[in-house]
Amino acid sequence: MTKYSESYCDVLIVGAGPAGLMAARVLSQYVREDPDLKVRIIDKRSTKVYNGQADGLQCRTLESLKNLGLADKILEEANDMSTIALYNPDETGKIRRTDRIPDTLPGISRYHQVVLHQGRIERHILDSIAEVSDTRVKVERPIIPEKMEIDSSKAEDPDAYPVTMTLRYMGEEESTPLQFGHRTENGLFRSNLQTQEEEDAQYRLPEGKEAGEIETVHCKYVIGCDGGHSWVRRTLGFEMIGEQTDYIWGVLDAVPASNFPDIRSRCAIHSAESGSIMIIPRENNLVRFYVQLQDRAEKGQRVDRTKFTPEVVIANAKKIFEPYTFDVQQLDWFTAYHIGQRVTEKFSKDERVFIAGDACHTHSPKAGQGMNTSMMDTYNLGWKLGLVLSGRAKRDILKTYEQERQPFAQALIDFDHQFSRLFSGRPAKDVADEMGVSMDVFKEAFVKGNEFASGTAINYDENLVTDKKGSKQELAKNCVVGTRFKSHPVVRHSEGYWMHFGDRLVTDGRFRIILFAGKATDPAQMARIQKFGAYLDSEGSVISRFTPKGADRNSRIDVITIHSCHRDDIEMHDFPAPSLHPKWQYDFIYADCDSWHHPHPKSYQAWGVDETKGAVVVVRPDGYTSLVADLEDTAELDRYFDGILIEPKEKAGAQTEGDWTKVFV
Amino acid sequence: MTKYSESYCDVLIVGAGPAGLMAARVLSQYVREDPDLKVRIIDKRSTKVYNGQADGLQCRTLESLKNLGLADKILEEANDMSTIALYNPDETGKIRRTDRIPDTLPGISRYHQVVLHQGRIERHILDSIAEVSDTRVKVERPIIPEKMEIDSSKAEDPDAYPVTMTLRYMGEEESTPLQFGHRTENGLFRSNLQTQEEEDAQYRLPEGKEAGEIETVHCKYVIGCDGGHSWVRRTLGFEMIGEQTDYIWGVLDAVPASNFPDIRSRCAIHSAESGSIMIIPRENNLVRFYVQLQDRAEKGQRVDRTKFTPEVVIANAKKIFEPYTFDVQQLDWFTAYHIGQRVTEKFSKDERVFIAGDACHTHSPKAGQGMNTSMMDTYNLGWKLGLVLSGRAKRDILKTYEQERQPFAQALIDFDHQFSRLFSGRPAKDVADEMGVSMDVFKEAFVKGNEFASGTAINYDENLVTDKKGSKQELAKNCVVGTRFKSHPVVRHSEGYWMHFGDRLVTDGRFRIILFAGKATDPAQMARIQKFGAYLDSEGSVISRFTPKGADRNSRIDVITIHSCHRDDIEMHDFPAPSLHPKWQYDFIYADCDSWHHPHPKSYQAWGVDETKGAVVVVRPDGYTSLVADLEDTAELDRYFDGILIEPKEKAGAQTEGDWTKVFV
Repeated sequence: MTKYSESYCDVLIVGAGPAGLMAARVLSQYVREDPDLKVRIIDKRSTKVYNGQADGLQCRTLESLKNLGLADKILEEANDMSTIALYNPDETGKIRRTDRIPDTLPGISRYHQVVLHQGRIERHILDSIAEVSDTRVKVERPIIPEKMEIDSSKAEDPDAYPVTMTLRYMGEEESTPLQFGHRTENGLFRSNLQTQEEEDAQYRLPEGKEAGEIETVHCKYVIGCDGGHSWVRRTLGFEMIGEQTDYIWGVLDAVPASNFPDIRSRCAIHSAESGSIMIIPRENNLVRFYVQLQDRAEKGQRVDRTKFTPEVVIANAKKIFEPYTFDVQQLDWFTAYHIGQRVTEKFSKDERVFIAGDACHTHSPKAGQGMNTSMMDTYNLGWKLGLVLSGRAKRDILKTYEQERQPFAQALIDFDHQFSRLFSGRPAKDVADEMGVSMDVFKEAFVKGNEFASGTAINYDENLVTDKKGSKQELAKNCVVGTRFKSHPVVRHSEGYWMHFGDRLVTDGRFRIILFAGKATDPAQMARIQKFGAYLDSEGSVISRFTPKGADRNSRIDVITIHSCHRDDIEMHDFPAPSLHPKWQYDFIYADCDSWHHPHPKSYQAWGVDETKGAVVVVRPDGYTSLVADLEDTAELDRYFDGILIEPKEKAGAQTEGDWTKVFV
Repeated sequence: MTKYSESYCDVLIVGAGPAGLMAARVLSQYVREDPDLKVRIIDKRSTKVYNGQADGLQCRTLESLKNLGLADKILEEANDMSTIALYNPDETGKIRRTDRIPDTLPGISRYHQVVLHQGRIERHILDSIAEVSDTRVKVERPIIPEKMEIDSSKAEDPDAYPVTMTLRYMGEEESTPLQFGHRTENGLFRSNLQTQEEEDAQYRLPEGKEAGEIETVHCKYVIGCDGGHSWVRRTLGFEMIGEQTDYIWGVLDAVPASNFPDIRSRCAIHSAESGSIMIIPRENNLVRFYVQLQDRAEKGQRVDRTKFTPEVVIANAKKIFEPYTFDVQQLDWFTAYHIGQRVTEKFSKDERVFIAGDACHTHSPKAGQGMNTSMMDTYNLGWKLGLVLSGRAKRDILKTYEQERQPFAQALIDFDHQFSRLFSGRPAKDVADEMGVSMDVFKEAFVKGNEFASGTAINYDENLVTDKKGSKQELAKNCVVGTRFKSHPVVRHSEGYWMHFGDRLVTDGRFRIILFAGKATDPAQMARIQKFGAYLDSEGSVISRFTPKGADRNSRIDVITIHSCHRDDIEMHDFPAPSLHPKWQYDFIYADCDSWHHPHPKSYQAWGVDETKGAVVVVRPDGYTSLVADLEDTAELDRYFDGILIEPKEKAGAQTEGDWTKVFV
């Protein structure tokens, strides 16, 4: 007898890979603040990730993970990639090193690209979800969606549940995925970095549920993070547009035995006739090898995957590696794939059902983009959905998800399309060899691609939350509206602690107003600062209007001051209180000045802000610069936030200095 | 009916505070390698540490914790202390800031002094003990020792168990400590950073044991880490020599409400007439206040501690803080104490029973030395005992524990004696005020004391494991034999990864031979390197003789090479293999050269080593430099290790190149 049940939830996330987990993690913050908010995440697999899945973490992803409290833990386990070595055929046709370039372009981020097994990254995100949501959000598995109905007529009703999902609870047997024709054994392909207990805890049906049960869930929102074969995408009828190449690549995760001198570097190796290899050194002595195979896929025909055994991949790698030796001491995982670049035109239906990650874009794994782009998709969507669900922001901001992420995905696959053809192509023998790939062109594409791949080059177009038109960009030349607000070092005024300012921008759903206070010791400038502070404390400021009565005054919009004086030349108490210096709080005022263990960081210069006059910069909850204004432009702040936020029923209102007394030293 | 039992163990550690846990942690490495080794640690308390106990972590302690795999976790939670502000009375008699100085002297270490609640530090060490020993070593509690008998006649017999201990398993009731006349409630004083489950797991009697049971334990070695009132010390009859002052101090751990501008800095405040305060800002907005009280202790009389309530301490703090406001928003913990400096002459009985930490030296808490010195005592003892127990080293090395740590403890209490009098003294009104303390003298003592307190200034005298006489110190001028081998940045040759070389010196019981290979691209120097490599691979080398057959060749003495060439100018395979470049290993060769994200670290210069000729430096398992030699001085290596190590029954013997083939790029 099939059991049936019915329930309601605010957000149902389908798929617990990187995109789904990131969505759950960002939304957990809102669940923490409002325990009535119901966020669920389901996955059709009974087991968590295998060895071998995508594992590069790009700079921008690490910056975001830092603000989620996850980067330090991940960096402790990850392998830092330092160098890329390029190998090309020499005159004898054997490979030799022609170049070494940095894996992360110096200066683009405070983080370098690193590599860590996806299972570990997911483990850290899962732990963080449990902690932040107080275990209210957890992955339910194995569950598959079987039916989805969207009532578009109710899409704009904030109280409606316009999406009806039918879910089926599966048995362990049917949820264990197949791999290369063999049923994957539990344990065999599991991460060797997790304990059995940790793993097992993941695989049980939710309490009180049984295999075969059908649940009808009325959802306000659904996020499809269900991978390249996304059921949600297919059900929406969205087409993946793009093409497959005929190149076939094998992948090995192995502990190698090789006298190749750069086996611990990332390498791009083009052999004369046997294809290419990319090396990605990993944690625990593992190295990933992407090995081009000699077989080609026939157009429109399915490739016979049983042909591609580890032996075939290793044999081809040996040929490419000549004159170096290559063997495998220990094989951890292998696969083979077929490069394709495809993307959907739409990322959302009625801003009620969204798709993210591989569900809406696929590309070759070698640039390490899959997991990063997937996580960054839902890192973008999460705060918007959280603000709408909690009644703080207008539903209109949800449109900006597709506006921002679809063009980025498109740019990514265009890049990947070009890059993978250059990498899979045969090197040109000489300048006259027009069929071959010029190694100079390849190197140039690689260097350029690396910056793109770091995720730091993203520049979102003008939209509701990205206010380029209203900005005085010249006041903060390097805080480009639409790009991520880059971190530079500052000194915390209260005790002279040197730190990266980016560390202060915790991902907790808050907007930030960063007041570059400039030369606060100058009386004329201090008068401007005082005026700005008086605005913030006034009845009509964005703080007074958008913060609910009784809530912490920085809980919706967090105001942080960075001045350009030496901290010995001014006291925290000299800044207007409570607006800029909340009572008994010590992490609201920072200085761009030298400190005991570090030279002057010159961060005003790096941000492109005038050291005397300063500027005001608004940063979105996901760390992107969204408005640049002058200290007098408080009307711009009003205008920007009026377009996005909703005033609570009971507002905080004006703030007075109270018993905050000043004593001058 | 009392139950009796009898057992044997290699090491019994009495007391699970910082000293005892560090002993257990270091010994866990040997237990991991030899599961037959039995290391036990008992504690009389049923509960773990309260709030409020010692919490500063000095540079050298952090360096050691890094090599135990613990520093990163601790630093993530700890509060970094940046600045010390000095406040003195001005002409009106009110306090004002007169100086700011760095809390950690720039350049002395790659770590800065930080602060974290002792309970969290112990938690991380406990986790690490469980991990490294595979849960073979765990704290048993509540258990007290009741009798100890030492059969000195068997002290030199390696197979004997000369120490007989009688232990009693206690009930929860009798093991809960008293605090200020009130029974401490479980929960009230527990760390708020740990979960209930984590805590509870600590408090159970070992399985199968019941309250009241008496166990006779035959021990090879006992380490008394049982605190200031050490039962082990008293049973040995060792006297604590030194004196108490008459100054009484109160301590508050509180979230303050104060307009004092440096409340988040470490501060030393001398008021004109009301005494002194030291501020130690902590994690989670907590601040520790050491507040001098007006009461004095009468010589030889017990102080009535019930007089010292938080209200009394806060009231006095208010007076000292004038003209600033001072109040307490939240009081986490408080206590009061009486400064005394005392130390025992002996740290060991027959090198069979040792005492460590507060059991052999006590001093004032304000310099943050207690926990650090305690941990560093057993960090020193642990590897020596581990090597002796595992049959690798001669028992003679155990004498060096007392030889090294007793003079350090003596120096510490001499420093503390001077410092605490300067800090507790009334500031001089002017130069003619001879009864007052000159604030210039105080500042000088503070700055000097800070270097001492960092733990980096330790320089052990000549002894069996510290070979100053046999060293050619001039070859590595700044690797001073007897001091800790200081970390400087290097680049890992295999992939160009910039890192601190100290991170490579994991605390795992191994000695290290660091080959500063110099300018390896120079053929004459390469010939010397080749000769050194040939020695290591030869039958008679310290590696071939002291490594057991079948064991990893780097398992007893780890040979690491740092050359001074750019990594683009030489290949790893150019270095002699397998001696310096073990097969398929990539973390044995380092370069002092520039890298993508860092300038040239000039580390040869920092170590004081000639960039052409190089040097050989031996580093002990605890990271102290113990021998400096020339590349030709292999006889010095033989002599040094012959004095310490014992050849295994079956030696590894000579090593041949085998199938390690070279391919030159």
